[in-house]
Amino acid sequence: MKSIKTQFKKFQYFYPYTVALVGARAGNRVNFMSCAWHTALSFEPPLFGVLIARKRLTHEVISAAREFSVNFLSFDRVRLSAQMGRKSGHEVDKIKEFGVSLQPAKVIKSPLIEEAYVAFECRLAEVRPLGDHDLFVGEVLAVHHDAQAFNSEGVLNPLKVHPLLYLGSDFYLTIDPDTLKHIVPD
Amino acid sequence: MKSIKTQFKKFQYFYPYTVALVGARAGNRVNFMSCAWHTALSFEPPLFGVLIARKRLTHEVISAAREFSVNFLSFDRVRLSAQMGRKSGHEVDKIKEFGVSLQPAKVIKSPLIEEAYVAFECRLAEVRPLGDHDLFVGEVLAVHHDAQAFNSEGVLNPLKVHPLLYLGSDFYLTIDPDTLKHIVPD
Repeated sequence: MKSIKTQFKKFQYFYPYTVALVGARAGNRVNFMSCAWHTALSFEPPLFGVLIARKRLTHEVISAAREFSVNFLSFDRVRLSAQMGRKSGHEVDKIKEFGVSLQPAKVIKSPLIEEAYVAFECRLAEVRPLGDHDLFVGEVLAVHHDAQAFNSEGVLNPLKVHPLLYLGSDFYLTIDPDTLKHIVPD
Repeated sequence: MKSIKTQFKKFQYFYPYTVALVGARAGNRVNFMSCAWHTALSFEPPLFGVLIARKRLTHEVISAAREFSVNFLSFDRVRLSAQMGRKSGHEVDKIKEFGVSLQPAKVIKSPLIEEAYVAFECRLAEVRPLGDHDLFVGEVLAVHHDAQAFNSEGVLNPLKVHPLLYLGSDFYLTIDPDTLKHIVPD
């Protein structure tokens, strides 16, 4: 038996989603935020999309930089993720405040987050308004990844990496590697 | 030390993502497909987006129906999800072939998947081409959920539901409920 709601104060039922730190450098401003609303958009060309509310400083910085990086964190960085999500770059320099280590990218000028197990360098292809967020469409120019953490097809090894998953309302958890199954239908 | 790739045969490093069955009814055609490329887009209005390749029958059916349902499956339905993803509705009537149970929606005319732990009824707001996929933007008109599986804010209880997570290349796994953390930053 299911409940049916046509009004909901919080629209959250779709979680868990992995958490990525998304950001850029524009001039001397560097800002990143935690982002759980994201998805691959296209294989060819490889496009990845992130949703950002208009009031966020990251929105302003990526719009100016015309590029961004997407950095996936593992579960042991849950506190950093929570901090990077709840504070705004309008209030505090989050990179300094939370001791985030940056590293240079290969193609773009904006930095990556050093502790990410995989990071994408993206050129901003377009920005599309959707309700109260904007979809930032990134063309993926380079992927930085811990080679031990992925197989040759880019599939994450759940024994090596425990991705950080967000459940909504400040709840987090991770995967159970013992449940891994390979299912090829007939 | 990280490897850097600027060419990748398969663009997969972003998984795990939950798997949803997405579909609609148009006339006497009902079709659903497994979809791991999806994201929330907006809180107000509540918008949810799914990416669908143009060759899929689901693309045709949702475009004709101007509505769709999004149905999240638990890990014990991993085989159904694999089947619904790999086969095309152009080849076989997947609902009959795989014994999928449908149930009527409340607002839209298209059905929901009975075994989903949460399902969204969506009005098709727009379709936006993005590389080799189209983004179908759904305005969420109703949420059907197992009330025992979510708290009052719509946060999933990981002891009650084990969501199905896709890792790419036919690999699946689920969450570890014992890792749940509630982290409210200072």
